[in-house]
Amino acid sequence: MSALMNSTVTLEEIYAPVERSLESVSGSMVDILSHANELTQEVVRYFFSVKGKQLRPALTLLGAALKTADTALEKRAVRLGAALEIFHSATLIHDDIIDDALIRRNLQAVHLKWTPKVAVLAGDYFHDQAIKAIFEIGSQELLGLFLKTAGEVCDGEIRELRERHNFDLTEAVYLDIIDKKTASLLACALAGGAILAGAGEHEKNALLRFGLNFGRAFQVVDDLLDLTGTESDFGKTLGADCMAGVLTLPFIHFFSSAGPAKREALMNRYRQEFSPANVQAVRELLRQEGSLDYAVKRAREFSESARHELAIFEETPARRSLERLLDYVLERNK
Amino acid sequence: MSALMNSTVTLEEIYAPVERSLESVSGSMVDILSHANELTQEVVRYFFSVKGKQLRPALTLLGAALKTADTALEKRAVRLGAALEIFHSATLIHDDIIDDALIRRNLQAVHLKWTPKVAVLAGDYFHDQAIKAIFEIGSQELLGLFLKTAGEVCDGEIRELRERHNFDLTEAVYLDIIDKKTASLLACALAGGAILAGAGEHEKNALLRFGLNFGRAFQVVDDLLDLTGTESDFGKTLGADCMAGVLTLPFIHFFSSAGPAKREALMNRYRQEFSPANVQAVRELLRQEGSLDYAVKRAREFSESARHELAIFEETPARRSLERLLDYVLERNK
Repeated sequence: MSALMNSTVTLEEIYAPVERSLESVSGSMVDILSHANELTQEVVRYFFSVKGKQLRPALTLLGAALKTADTALEKRAVRLGAALEIFHSATLIHDDIIDDALIRRNLQAVHLKWTPKVAVLAGDYFHDQAIKAIFEIGSQELLGLFLKTAGEVCDGEIRELRERHNFDLTEAVYLDIIDKKTASLLACALAGGAILAGAGEHEKNALLRFGLNFGRAFQVVDDLLDLTGTESDFGKTLGADCMAGVLTLPFIHFFSSAGPAKREALMNRYRQEFSPANVQAVRELLRQEGSLDYAVKRAREFSESARHELAIFEETPARRSLERLLDYVLERNK
Repeated sequence: MSALMNSTVTLEEIYAPVERSLESVSGSMVDILSHANELTQEVVRYFFSVKGKQLRPALTLLGAALKTADTALEKRAVRLGAALEIFHSATLIHDDIIDDALIRRNLQAVHLKWTPKVAVLAGDYFHDQAIKAIFEIGSQELLGLFLKTAGEVCDGEIRELRERHNFDLTEAVYLDIIDKKTASLLACALAGGAILAGAGEHEKNALLRFGLNFGRAFQVVDDLLDLTGTESDFGKTLGADCMAGVLTLPFIHFFSSAGPAKREALMNRYRQEFSPANVQAVRELLRQEGSLDYAVKRAREFSESARHELAIFEETPARRSLERLLDYVLERNK
């Protein structure tokens, strides 16, 4: 969309300082899930046949690299990144049941490729194995942070479910939901890597705040892409949130800003059957009200808040990558 | 059913040595789940409005009481029992989605009272909070055992799903499934309590074997009750396993023992729509082949194997309770 810049930075460039470690993550994921039965192995091969953005493992490795270049650390950080990616995948598989999503990473969603039953259990299994792998890394501080985060992710998802079709949702409640649902795990990934590398309390907290603001920016852009992206780039069903009655930031702005007639027009669209034409009409109403621009502005603000947190770290390639990641997230189209 | 004895021992009597601690478990469960959002709290209040058998907390407390009467230990054992009951509840909520079950503890199942979406997320939340509570108890040995167990429970459930409608299922595979799905958590509950009370490797392993054999007996009787119980006693939908194509021990015996005509007769029943009359006809076919009696015999054998494991413990009230629990499990009708 026009308000977002054209992409000038790629994830490959951003991930360069941790490229070699990041390549080990897939193998570590396979290893963590290697004791699964055949049905689960089929799901593993299918779901991971298309790589996601690997954002969480990359954050873990960058978080570690911010603090040290010690290669002895690498194996544990790779393991943590792999476990977080598996945990994240578990939440995606369950989310797709909950959202009635059709596609994920350009593949049919697991609950449709198999059944919702398989998706429930495969998600549970991924979840359990991820926690077990983090336990085995052997850091109490890390495990404590992760378990707190896992609870928040789930709590955020339930709150989101509860607030569906609530046209009076406030931005404060929305932010609380996305902090828990999305940002907390990104923050945990980054701070987790740094914890393994011996970060102190002050640094850890700065990285948690970076992760939180980065996560907010990331989610707001995700919300925008749900409305304005193209399905082949985005790799998910377009308009899925809208269809499911999830009120995202542009809608929250719209309903707090627009007059009764416009509100009624948008609500009418909500009540109609979901269609590309309908999504287009919704987008146009939001655009006219300035609600898309508002969301872009907020994403930028969160991104800038995140940037400030990096000031206490040395100017390493890892820090530079985190700064560029903040640009990337605003520019991305997938 | 006639092959099982009339009930002569009650759970109240069995639980007597740990009665006071067991009364604290509900409060501890509420505490563990107290940070949930409103929707989750509603599920908590609903699901726990009817107490289950509290078998896992009771095993934990008895496992601890086998080793020590130290009251300082009580709080941690209560917390562990509460966490295991919450974890177990999470698996029940997900199981009921998977099995299309209608009722649980004489209440409408969560996925019907709310939606499958709420059931997926509430189960995830219970699951996460249970793990977090066990982490906070602070025993690495215990957490390691529990996380291994959680993975097994899930693996067992997926294998069961995979083996549905497999009329050639062997008893060995069946036992592997129920060991993981049911027995492992019971074993973990008992051994976990003992670990907190300072049990050594030898004792821990004996209790894990007790739990495994007790769990097998428990599950085989559960399979029988699915066919022969009354719904109001059992508190679950009768014939649910049968309806879902789960092959339980009586069926495995039947298909390995009966001739082609009888096999065909039973398979015909499977293909028909589920009804009480159909369950009755299935039961009669199994009875005639001696398949119900066979399952009862196996349950007794598992129960006796479990009993032998208690020989190394002092003859305390807790040990006596575990012995009586072995009788109870064969006699129970719910």
